[in-house]
Amino acid sequence: MAPKYKLTYFNAKALAEPIRFLFAYGGLEFEDVRISTKDWPNHKSSFPYGKVPTLEVDGQIIDQSKAIGRYLAKKVGLMGKDDWEDLLIDSVVDTFNDFRLECAEYAYEPDPKIKAKKQEKLWKETIPFYMNKLDELAKENGGYLVCGKLTWADVYVAGMHETYILYSGQNFLEGRAHLKSVVDKVYAIPAIKAIIDKRPSNEEF
Amino acid sequence: MAPKYKLTYFNAKALAEPIRFLFAYGGLEFEDVRISTKDWPNHKSSFPYGKVPTLEVDGQIIDQSKAIGRYLAKKVGLMGKDDWEDLLIDSVVDTFNDFRLECAEYAYEPDPKIKAKKQEKLWKETIPFYMNKLDELAKENGGYLVCGKLTWADVYVAGMHETYILYSGQNFLEGRAHLKSVVDKVYAIPAIKAIIDKRPSNEEF
Repeated sequence: MAPKYKLTYFNAKALAEPIRFLFAYGGLEFEDVRISTKDWPNHKSSFPYGKVPTLEVDGQIIDQSKAIGRYLAKKVGLMGKDDWEDLLIDSVVDTFNDFRLECAEYAYEPDPKIKAKKQEKLWKETIPFYMNKLDELAKENGGYLVCGKLTWADVYVAGMHETYILYSGQNFLEGRAHLKSVVDKVYAIPAIKAIIDKRPSNEEF
Repeated sequence: MAPKYKLTYFNAKALAEPIRFLFAYGGLEFEDVRISTKDWPNHKSSFPYGKVPTLEVDGQIIDQSKAIGRYLAKKVGLMGKDDWEDLLIDSVVDTFNDFRLECAEYAYEPDPKIKAKKQEKLWKETIPFYMNKLDELAKENGGYLVCGKLTWADVYVAGMHETYILYSGQNFLEGRAHLKSVVDKVYAIPAIKAIIDKRPSNEEF
């Protein structure tokens, strides 16, 4: 019998969206539980680490979005052909995650003066640095981020990019045709396109 | 021929130490390059993402400490017996990494007033929360963090713990006998003990 998957997150893309894409890509059924940020304080303590996303597999609850993503990527054939390719894929995922953390540090800064300074650094240094690197990778790897083929790294970056464009306040795909083509390719996969088309219209981020 | 490994980091434990432990555990030769923080500005731009640690394998340079650790854990037999165990291991590693980021946020805070507030939160909430969870895991898993056997998760937490005791200002193993026994067990592995005994006496952190 196929395992019973339940993904729990906010009513948002962000950390859950690459996981949703993997389920869709592999044709795996999953329950897509979405908690509104308004209701979150009532739910927080019922999660092992007070955080989401979590994945429940046949009743066992697992934390950590990248670990969950890697697990599903194996299931749906989007990891590498060997340990070396897996390493390259994992490295790209963690690099985008470093970028994500820098965006979040800016987005959640409460002091407007400090925030303005952080924005300048984010826009003038961080975004160009990371995104030019990813654009270069996409150029070198034939329109994919790594290994010359579609992998979890592409799905991760594509799945996250909308939220981090929102958080960073800058469309970092613009002027980076190779990186943009990676995202476009992932979004054009019929099963992924289908769940994008069915996104709730009231998503919060 | 065995691959030629070169690990580059600061003259410090922190992110590189679990990687050094894996090399030692597996009996793999590696070059242990250590750059002093004083010299770092002269070197930073020569690294792909301006960050260390990096692993060079037969001339190819790879970023991201957890990706590198996972790769080596596969080589030395410290990942799980299947995808599910790998998921549990990866999840624990990323949970400790979340804790590490919270320690770093406190340790690098320049404003003394804000730092005092962050210390209170770190000591009263963050450390008890994460470390009680890990202590509980170690109790449930027969003296290991996960899977009832020695894995990359144990080596990761053990390898990181000294730096994050230093950064957090609190010995979070104290009063957590199960978690402490995990660290003690890793430190007692002869090959790991041997490289701990040979640590440079002038390590910076």
